[in-house]
Amino acid sequence: MSEAQDTNTLKARRFGIDTQHETMAFVRDDCPVCRSEGFSAHSRVRLQNGDHAIIATLYHVSPELLGRDEIGLSESAWARLETKPGAPLAVSHPAPLNSLADVRAKIFGQHLGNDTALEIISDIVEGRYSDIQICAFVTACAALPLDLDETTALTRAMVETGEKIAWPNTPIVDKHCVGGLPGNRTTPIIVAIAAAHGLTMPKTSSRAITSPSGTADTMEVLTRVDLDLSEMRHVVETEGGCFVWGGSMQFSPSDDAMIRIERALDLDSQGTLIASVLSKKIAAGATHLIIDIPVGPTAKVRSPEAAIALQQSFIPIGEQFGIKVQVEMTDGSQPVGRGIGPALEARDVLAVLRGDDGAPNDLRDRACQLAGSLLELVGKAPEKQGTLMARATLDSGDAWHKFKAICQAQGGFETPPSAKHTRPILAARAGHVAAIDNRRLAKAAKLAGAPEDKAAGIDLHVRLGDVVNKGDTLYTLHTESAGELAYAIEYIAANPGIIDLTSP
Amino acid sequence: MSEAQDTNTLKARRFGIDTQHETMAFVRDDCPVCRSEGFSAHSRVRLQNGDHAIIATLYHVSPELLGRDEIGLSESAWARLETKPGAPLAVSHPAPLNSLADVRAKIFGQHLGNDTALEIISDIVEGRYSDIQICAFVTACAALPLDLDETTALTRAMVETGEKIAWPNTPIVDKHCVGGLPGNRTTPIIVAIAAAHGLTMPKTSSRAITSPSGTADTMEVLTRVDLDLSEMRHVVETEGGCFVWGGSMQFSPSDDAMIRIERALDLDSQGTLIASVLSKKIAAGATHLIIDIPVGPTAKVRSPEAAIALQQSFIPIGEQFGIKVQVEMTDGSQPVGRGIGPALEARDVLAVLRGDDGAPNDLRDRACQLAGSLLELVGKAPEKQGTLMARATLDSGDAWHKFKAICQAQGGFETPPSAKHTRPILAARAGHVAAIDNRRLAKAAKLAGAPEDKAAGIDLHVRLGDVVNKGDTLYTLHTESAGELAYAIEYIAANPGIIDLTSP
Repeated sequence: MSEAQDTNTLKARRFGIDTQHETMAFVRDDCPVCRSEGFSAHSRVRLQNGDHAIIATLYHVSPELLGRDEIGLSESAWARLETKPGAPLAVSHPAPLNSLADVRAKIFGQHLGNDTALEIISDIVEGRYSDIQICAFVTACAALPLDLDETTALTRAMVETGEKIAWPNTPIVDKHCVGGLPGNRTTPIIVAIAAAHGLTMPKTSSRAITSPSGTADTMEVLTRVDLDLSEMRHVVETEGGCFVWGGSMQFSPSDDAMIRIERALDLDSQGTLIASVLSKKIAAGATHLIIDIPVGPTAKVRSPEAAIALQQSFIPIGEQFGIKVQVEMTDGSQPVGRGIGPALEARDVLAVLRGDDGAPNDLRDRACQLAGSLLELVGKAPEKQGTLMARATLDSGDAWHKFKAICQAQGGFETPPSAKHTRPILAARAGHVAAIDNRRLAKAAKLAGAPEDKAAGIDLHVRLGDVVNKGDTLYTLHTESAGELAYAIEYIAANPGIIDLTSP
Repeated sequence: MSEAQDTNTLKARRFGIDTQHETMAFVRDDCPVCRSEGFSAHSRVRLQNGDHAIIATLYHVSPELLGRDEIGLSESAWARLETKPGAPLAVSHPAPLNSLADVRAKIFGQHLGNDTALEIISDIVEGRYSDIQICAFVTACAALPLDLDETTALTRAMVETGEKIAWPNTPIVDKHCVGGLPGNRTTPIIVAIAAAHGLTMPKTSSRAITSPSGTADTMEVLTRVDLDLSEMRHVVETEGGCFVWGGSMQFSPSDDAMIRIERALDLDSQGTLIASVLSKKIAAGATHLIIDIPVGPTAKVRSPEAAIALQQSFIPIGEQFGIKVQVEMTDGSQPVGRGIGPALEARDVLAVLRGDDGAPNDLRDRACQLAGSLLELVGKAPEKQGTLMARATLDSGDAWHKFKAICQAQGGFETPPSAKHTRPILAARAGHVAAIDNRRLAKAAKLAGAPEDKAAGIDLHVRLGDVVNKGDTLYTLHTESAGELAYAIEYIAANPGIIDLTSP
């Protein structure tokens, strides 16, 4: 195709459309390259600027938007091509995407092997998949759950296609929570305790997938989290721990693309979840890992059986990659702490670390339990002594001191913001709190604007078993805009059972 | 939300981006409505202009493209809203899409019921699903194949959400081919024969899904096919038959959206296939239906068992909707006729209808077999006499006469175009033709530009069992652009086994 390619150039134009991960290109339908190459709307095209090549989805635009010899680029395409206004871009047909046959094979029930997983994940990382193609893969992985070998293959592929970090000494400890429980923000506390004990805990966290906040969203309220690999290494070498957004690490770059689609579908599946978690831990160099699985009727994991199924995958797959995994099943029947949403959760974390009067005990207890398990897992604490040891580190102020030191090393410590609008949601009648629907409470917090609006979310005032009077505040909505406030209220009105009150 | 909605207006601007089915909207990230409502990039937003409301995906654009109080609309959004430049559009949060929970339930193995199918399909028809959401649904239907009840539910939902047509008299005959066989363009011939016999055959056809041409693509070369319902009714009342693109009928509008995604994934599944076929036949008022299933190692249906599985769904589901279905399994081991691609296939169809010397016999035989079955199914022909009767109608010139009359009624008859570039593909050695890979031959025809370029495709010069010498032409590529020619040649070079020659 070389004779054709030489003449197929169009002038780059930054089109200023933010399409996030998906790359898009825009041309007039009378553009000469499209005529000669036969590109039609929605074609996938290969664009090249020197060493940088991408595949983009092509859209046709009307003549007033572009010159005939121009090609408009979405922000993502512009960034990946590292081009300049007016610079020539070579436009050609992309090579056929052979790994799509592997995706179809998985859809039709074939086993996902090491080679096919690597082909699919490599193409996703290289930006060769459209959102639809990624969606077909993640949906197939949910509909036909990955078995142990398939999950291992997917994990390995995700590790091999990303950055890896090696540390001079072991153990390297880590912790992960299989989400689904609003407000369960133990990680920053655990990192502070572990690092105060001299352990190395290079913690990377994700942003929310389907929840109102991820640990990275919460920590971003308090400090800078988008450190690069060398900045992170420096923080960890200095302070022993960090709270960093994993997305800027490129540890498992395919995962971000897949998570974006799963978020749009509100879809989680065991195989992609395990591969997502473990690939990042493997890439981060972890040797010892605690996994917190909250179990409850409206948590992500709804039964002890489902938690055991996860455990039975996490432990052997971790072992294959040299990680000692311990799974802790915790109470998932209600939120942890009071705040739900980045800033409100950050407030609770600070209260526990500072030992404030009125700091949420449940958050404190759970953080100490998990930190204690970690201390025991690496042999820092004698068996059954871990929790006590963790609690002492909190009480002495060592953890709070370490927390501030890590924040300073990451770029400084900030105070959480407050939301513009608040609205109490009142008990319609007297009763005691019989159930709290984590999912719908999380949904209301998202409708209020979390996690995009840092200060938005829900402040929960009751816990299971509490007795309330008619008119008592059950929780308070925090929002940054009147529209979101109205929208969250509308949802709450349509879902009266979010907090289930039974007659006293 | 009424107090918020009243003030949330932005001025419509036609943005000139052709996004096909998916509706997109573009705003500046400092636009006041986004600030007050909390819309972020990739939000789904509801846009309303009087009685017209749509849901669109929101993208942020840089300030030079739009005013702060403007909202840019893709062509699809512009058309659906029927708005004017500068007219106010109400912008709000869409109601939560409850049917997505049904899609997730299907992904996680729950049975698709009548209600859930109707909810999902209604939302797709109303444009409430993004491409990703449609993709998750069609992928789930492929990964966890729909059973008989689920397929019936999907079929019913597709019928209920579309237009229906009733005819004054029965029988209404119809025919469908479960594709996968390049060049298998019997439909126009069968319609001409059936209508020449006085039968009513209001034939609607689809465009290509994953093939180089659909019947609608081929017929579009010869006449106008995008008739609306009343135009089609007039043609059928006048001539007894028609060749119309089904997509302009709105018989099963969800199907077009689903097919578009399946095409992007090159994915077919039995449940969506049966629902797609039967919903359109039910909506078109059919009472008697012949289904042609070509079976061969590289056809869409690869084994008699798979064809029987289709038959076992088609017949009972058809019966539930009052259609007498007969399935014909035909030879799917090689293409039918010589041309592959709209214009080349149209050429073959004309040759058979006119009785030209050298008209492809296989196409003629197959059309007569299927037309004969149809004549028998409705009692027009005695048992085993249908094929002979069909052949006589062809030989007498009655079918050709009827064909031209239908074309004239649809808007006139045109001669097929020829491609700019042709390139013979030669036998690398002597041998006899042991196998023809339908799929890869179709892929080569698509790379050559079919069906978007009407004249593009492949002209096949050999059939199974033929003996060829080194340097003989196996087939000829037809393309409209040098780029596509090069691309198809590259693919053929990388896939030498498309036509398998064994030693003589």
